[in-house]
Amino acid sequence: MTTDTEVTSSPSHPALAGAERAIAELQETGQYFFQRGWSVGTSSNYSAVLNRSPLQLVVTASGMDKGRLKPNDFVRCNYDGVQVDTDNQPTTDQPRSSAETLLHVVLARLEDVGSVLHTHSVWGTLLSDHFSAEGGFEIEDYEMLKGLAGVKTHRHVESVPIFDNTQDIPKLAEKVDKRLHDESLPPIHGFLIRNHGLYTWGENVAEARRHIEIYEFLFEVLGRKLSAQGKLCNNA
Amino acid sequence: MTTDTEVTSSPSHPALAGAERAIAELQETGQYFFQRGWSVGTSSNYSAVLNRSPLQLVVTASGMDKGRLKPNDFVRCNYDGVQVDTDNQPTTDQPRSSAETLLHVVLARLEDVGSVLHTHSVWGTLLSDHFSAEGGFEIEDYEMLKGLAGVKTHRHVESVPIFDNTQDIPKLAEKVDKRLHDESLPPIHGFLIRNHGLYTWGENVAEARRHIEIYEFLFEVLGRKLSAQGKLCNNA
Amino acid sequence: MTTDTEVTSSPSHPALAGAERAIAELQETGQYFFQRGWSVGTSSNYSAVLNRSPLQLVVTASGMDKGRLKPNDFVRCNYDGVQVDTDNQPTTDQPRSSAETLLHVVLARLEDVGSVLHTHSVWGTLLSDHFSAEGGFEIEDYEMLKGLAGVKTHRHVESVPIFDNTQDIPKLAEKVDKRLHDESLPPIHGFLIRNHGLYTWGENVAEARRHIEIYEFLFEVLGRKLSAQGKLCNNA
Amino acid sequence: MTTDTEVTSSPSHPALAGAERAIAELQETGQYFFQRGWSVGTSSNYSAVLNRSPLQLVVTASGMDKGRLKPNDFVRCNYDGVQVDTDNQPTTDQPRSSAETLLHVVLARLEDVGSVLHTHSVWGTLLSDHFSAEGGFEIEDYEMLKGLAGVKTHRHVESVPIFDNTQDIPKLAEKVDKRLHDESLPPIHGFLIRNHGLYTWGENVAEARRHIEIYEFLFEVLGRKLSAQGKLCNNA
Repeated sequence: MTTDTEVTSSPSHPALAGAERAIAELQETGQYFFQRGWSVGTSSNYSAVLNRSPLQLVVTASGMDKGRLKPNDFVRCNYDGVQVDTDNQPTTDQPRSSAETLLHVVLARLEDVGSVLHTHSVWGTLLSDHFSAEGGFEIEDYEMLKGLAGVKTHRHVESVPIFDNTQDIPKLAEKVDKRLHDESLPPIHGFLIRNHGLYTWGENVAEARRHIEIYEFLFEVLGRKLSAQGKLCNNA
Repeated sequence: MTTDTEVTSSPSHPALAGAERAIAELQETGQYFFQRGWSVGTSSNYSAVLNRSPLQLVVTASGMDKGRLKPNDFVRCNYDGVQVDTDNQPTTDQPRSSAETLLHVVLARLEDVGSVLHTHSVWGTLLSDHFSAEGGFEIEDYEMLKGLAGVKTHRHVESVPIFDNTQDIPKLAEKVDKRLHDESLPPIHGFLIRNHGLYTWGENVAEARRHIEIYEFLFEVLGRKLSAQGKLCNNA
Repeated sequence: MTTDTEVTSSPSHPALAGAERAIAELQETGQYFFQRGWSVGTSSNYSAVLNRSPLQLVVTASGMDKGRLKPNDFVRCNYDGVQVDTDNQPTTDQPRSSAETLLHVVLARLEDVGSVLHTHSVWGTLLSDHFSAEGGFEIEDYEMLKGLAGVKTHRHVESVPIFDNTQDIPKLAEKVDKRLHDESLPPIHGFLIRNHGLYTWGENVAEARRHIEIYEFLFEVLGRKLSAQGKLCNNA
Repeated sequence: MTTDTEVTSSPSHPALAGAERAIAELQETGQYFFQRGWSVGTSSNYSAVLNRSPLQLVVTASGMDKGRLKPNDFVRCNYDGVQVDTDNQPTTDQPRSSAETLLHVVLARLEDVGSVLHTHSVWGTLLSDHFSAEGGFEIEDYEMLKGLAGVKTHRHVESVPIFDNTQDIPKLAEKVDKRLHDESLPPIHGFLIRNHGLYTWGENVAEARRHIEIYEFLFEVLGRKLSAQGKLCNNA
């Protein structure tokens, strides 16, 4: 079902529309992330908002090889993370959605989020471990920060919260939701889960993808710097 | 010869069957592993089970370039590692099989093993050296562990045994066989040979390949962590 | 407008001429640099001189994905960095040029510069931070230095100035211009901006691209050496 | 001119013969090495023996981009390193051969050498610097050593001599020639030039290429090990 609040995606597949376009963009994203080593071993999951009201997303099904996603490797879900058909009715007639679907939903409910990307990288894993006791870290003074939406200067200070890893996704989704709406804390473009991976998002797949690139670049810079200093994961 | 216990492989080559499909999957696996730097210099060998009873495998012939395997670069062998023809009769009318064929056979005899993959990576080599005195090491608390078959939580503790390197493959195969059937020790998904490489397996080529990706990711994380701490290969 | 002082580019696109050829070369350069990780997250910008007198350049428009540049992702500008049409008349009928266009112009005014390339790499970022207090560093005794135009021996000493990062591009362009024309200092083939990136140039796109490769290779060598010595970014 | 002692190359281009095949193999080798980062910035040079008696080689011309070598980027030379035409007569009607042609010739004169490959890598550069005072180093106890022609066990000890870098190629060629024929020293499969690069060879292009892969793998293992130990380039 597409309505008057249908979300349009980035222009990389101009000939396609709606779900077909979102799926094509996420397939291509998977090939690229897999090749960079950020989505190996069937890790990671990706989603795109198809419709804003009522909320409907496509999200990768559980356990698929991200380097060669097929159109059938995606499922639809609604505002509550329940799998739905094209008419937004609950269905069980699909592969099982990713266990982490609720995290995608919590993020996709935000007004300006059109896509959520979750990846697993070596440097992100190392930093998530290194800074876990502090619950996060800050990145500042890098020109690359300007690749995050709305950032206009390298003077920007970006907070990267780290959540403890858990298999209790509803509980984690609740914590993430709370952090996102806590106006006493600085707004964020992404977060890490300890020894697990990165979540980031954007107004469309292209922007979310750019955010992954920015975070991965900065994680590698910080990780190599801490490593050279003999500090990385050496604070225990 | 294909029988009623023929093993079917993963769905990446749906149009092919039996040996043709297994070979196509292993060729593609070789291109991919070569490009990642895990199978350079004609190192590594790969196998897939064609038939369960009597056991018959295809395994890479000795000394082939894994980045461009041709269908003729594979040979068949039986339960004892003897090269056989399509009717499971001993033959010498093939290229020589890999010197390490017996290791593949010992693993392929396990009921739920449909493919065995052996690779040589930089991080695996370094860890196999670092932990050789202890005879192995444990990996725990990483989300990526869930990519190993049957693992349901990052709390899982995976043992990675390390065997001393040797050119006496029958003796090594015996040690591996003993470890696999020692019920006093935790079950494993793979092992290292010191300053040599990794063996892992799965119910089909896709699963064994996923296991390689999981191990290589975790080896890089552990290796970079130990390196940053100034510990890697510094315990002598 | 093409005149008798039209600049011809490298021979990689012999069938194309003028702006079409320059754009094709820069598109291909973007794909290559993106794949190497030197131009991710829509960072970087590239230019080529189309005409010497009056000076006219093509330069990448602001914020484009360098891995998939399209012909429309380039704009033209003149000696003063003002966007112009094919007849060299000021125009606003184009996407906005890169914020750093003035740096390209300052370099392109040099007689023997036919192309300017700006990239963002991890090792360049780390070195630009490490040596920022000294305002730069020297590279010598490497055979790869001979890849810089006019260098005939590994004994060559190449100065790499580092400028503080700023969002005030006209001011930075002025500093760069001053350094380029300061005859009391050794001539240079490139410079770094702190925690930002590398600028280099050449008589055509191929030479500027070769210079990027040379600098990135040498930055990685120096960065790994300082890292192993425990010195990298450890001087504070 | 092809004679009864014409050298046949590896089977990767079965439809081609003689010079055409050698050039096709070296072009493909250049693309591959460039992509691995071992031949960037127009560094490196490659050769293959076309005829044994009289000796005739094809060798890369000076200063070509190794990632996109064209058939015209190769020249022929004879036993003395003089450029010759297809009838083995001295000629000046070709691009200039690489400055290091004499090194190729000294190696190609060895009876069982059909191809010589020279590359520039980051880890090779770092090791050539680290061990330069000792004039070389030894590699032993790695399974990957078995990828060097004739090596049957990981117990093998391979000597890697390091020569000082120089622009005086005839003098360097003389030193290399002396080392190759010094029967008091162990035979070698390759050598390094300090802060410059690696030379290796094989009976054909495929074998020389395999040797490059073996050395690069082992250099990375040794380099990362020394780096983790805080020793790399820290002996001054």
